Amino acid sequence: MKTKPSIIGTGSTKFGERWEDGIREMVSHACVNALKSAGIEAKEVDSLFVANCFASSINGQSNLNALCSDELGIQNAVSIGGADAAGAYAMAQAANSIMSGQSKISLVLGVEKMSDLPITDITKITSEILEQDFEASTGATLAGLYAMITLRHMKEHGTTGKQLDMVSVKNHSNAVENGISQFKFKVTREDVAKSPMVADPIRVLHCAAPGDGCCAIVMCSEDISKRYKNKARIIGTGIGSDLMAVHEREDITRFNSVISASKNAFANAGIRLQDISFAEVHDSFSIGEIIAIEDIGFAKKGSGGRLIEEGHANIDGKIPINPSGGLKGCGHPFAATGIRQAIEAFMQLNKMAGKRQIKDPKYALTESIGGTGATAVVNIYSL
Amino acid sequence: MKTKPSIIGTGSTKFGERWEDGIREMVSHACVNALKSAGIEAKEVDSLFVANCFASSINGQSNLNALCSDELGIQNAVSIGGADAAGAYAMAQAANSIMSGQSKISLVLGVEKMSDLPITDITKITSEILEQDFEASTGATLAGLYAMITLRHMKEHGTTGKQLDMVSVKNHSNAVENGISQFKFKVTREDVAKSPMVADPIRVLHCAAPGDGCCAIVMCSEDISKRYKNKARIIGTGIGSDLMAVHEREDITRFNSVISASKNAFANAGIRLQDISFAEVHDSFSIGEIIAIEDIGFAKKGSGGRLIEEGHANIDGKIPINPSGGLKGCGHPFAATGIRQAIEAFMQLNKMAGKRQIKDPKYALTESIGGTGATAVVNIYSL
Repeated sequence: MKTKPSIIGTGSTKFGERWEDGIREMVSHACVNALKSAGIEAKEVDSLFVANCFASSINGQSNLNALCSDELGIQNAVSIGGADAAGAYAMAQAANSIMSGQSKISLVLGVEKMSDLPITDITKITSEILEQDFEASTGATLAGLYAMITLRHMKEHGTTGKQLDMVSVKNHSNAVENGISQFKFKVTREDVAKSPMVADPIRVLHCAAPGDGCCAIVMCSEDISKRYKNKARIIGTGIGSDLMAVHEREDITRFNSVISASKNAFANAGIRLQDISFAEVHDSFSIGEIIAIEDIGFAKKGSGGRLIEEGHANIDGKIPINPSGGLKGCGHPFAATGIRQAIEAFMQLNKMAGKRQIKDPKYALTESIGGTGATAVVNIYSL
Repeated sequence: MKTKPSIIGTGSTKFGERWEDGIREMVSHACVNALKSAGIEAKEVDSLFVANCFASSINGQSNLNALCSDELGIQNAVSIGGADAAGAYAMAQAANSIMSGQSKISLVLGVEKMSDLPITDITKITSEILEQDFEASTGATLAGLYAMITLRHMKEHGTTGKQLDMVSVKNHSNAVENGISQFKFKVTREDVAKSPMVADPIRVLHCAAPGDGCCAIVMCSEDISKRYKNKARIIGTGIGSDLMAVHEREDITRFNSVISASKNAFANAGIRLQDISFAEVHDSFSIGEIIAIEDIGFAKKGSGGRLIEEGHANIDGKIPINPSGGLKGCGHPFAATGIRQAIEAFMQLNKMAGKRQIKDPKYALTESIGGTGATAVVNIYSL
């Protein structure tokens, strides 16, 4: 089998409204902790991959790799985008660098500082990841488009309001046990159903909140990983895309990007769907988790909601989904999210997840989305 | 020797103020031409690398890889940043993808659409690639900081106003023969010396103008390149960085990023400085070309200006610099520039450069800068 990269160290800020920190402070905190946990010094790092989405639009900073090089003293650094999938895209670039022999050790970080602007501005700025000519310019927002996707999914496949609510109930419950999560409290189905309407049928508690945070991982080559007891091997990566504008797609209840990324990741990994012990998926809106479950194949089209309603996606269920708390419970600093998912894979596989630990996981899967399903990255991990 | 990637096709829009085109139209034009020149169809492309700097800030588009995937029908696409070096950074990522075996054929594009805003806004937006806390927030601009670098270089090393002017005279003269250049007219030394002052001692004709444009190249693995007669092999790449804020550097007349990137590129390529037949360097301001000449090693520190004044950097000189016309003559759509330099290397090595053709070039070098020397990428090419 081909050489595969491994994760050997992780670090993260707590997610939330971090008024006391700028991008530099968050990057420094997450990266120092990631390097420390791997016992690696910055000078041993061959390459740095900096994932970010909105530093230009929100923070007026369009040279983030230079800033991170300066802050961390690592020369070979590049900026990677990809909307809210940027973190996962950066991991794929680091993997290429390691598999090509250009790097032995890479540091990968995802950072976002979104609370510097009021939420009305953030809604406008997050629309920058949509298609401009026919979507954003007409006033469409992420929530507005996801609302249409949700309604259509309810109509076509019978997905219920209760099922959508239960995504949030489960993820909030899981997030209580996650040290980095922003929303460390449980919600009931009634709380979700009574929360303020954002874009019918999406309510506040169906949405992942944008926020501040930085996650970092140390990735290395196969030979170096042999020195480590705690590690997660990235055995498969798939990247997919779809038509960018939602209205151009034939069927808006499935994300072709996810279907294609997932297929490629499994082909790459050489394992089967039923080998997966748990998954972290992109629940930026509750329907996103249901579509992920269906499009990856954990449930048939139209029965993703039932899987959740019946408890099979709980931590002790047959296929735990978002044991970390997901984007919903952890908060969603866009480019940090993909790396946060990888950190959860690392922690679960190495049985470091404390009270949210899944029993004896063998293989993990993470799924990250850019925009309203325009792009997707799927990673598969083993011990 | 290790497998190296090759460039086998190129495409470009003309640089300038392209009022009739958006990002989509420019991407489509450059990529279709690049694929056509290589005889490759989009479906044969394994990965797409999209370099850009200001689509978020200027065009309100923060998901450019999704947009390019949609436009070109290529699924595996990623967005790469790195300020005005973004194009060169994207090439390095494509090289990793090819050398790792993940891709056989990659398409790499750099695109920028900057003329949608007036120049006063552009000056503020280009400051986003500077350090924020101590530089941009105090009102420093790219031209302002380069003016300080220029003054210090004049004081420390005796570089003269005439030498700075001659950079512009040479590059304008070369640009006349380049089909894609924005400024297809010659200027005299007097024209430069009398042009309006921007930031003393930098005048308008010492500055590269921001603009619109897209460049694309097809890169492939060594085995595929064997089918091609016209190609340029990328035999060495080096990436370097320096402290981001100019005032923190010990000596502002040299760019440590360039020194380090150049050293790594030569080590990687296994050739010597004297093997290089010509170079494309980052003359965003005239002093940038002089510093590049010195820091790469074509002239000793302090004698870069003399090299130009004495005509040695002319197309028929001993080491031609910027035969394309450089950033000054071609125009400078930030992320397109790094790819444009690679296209010049391809054209010159394959003797396709028409009236600006250098006699029998064997090895080419390109140098791309992010910001005021915060980062640099150096590539070395052979036939």
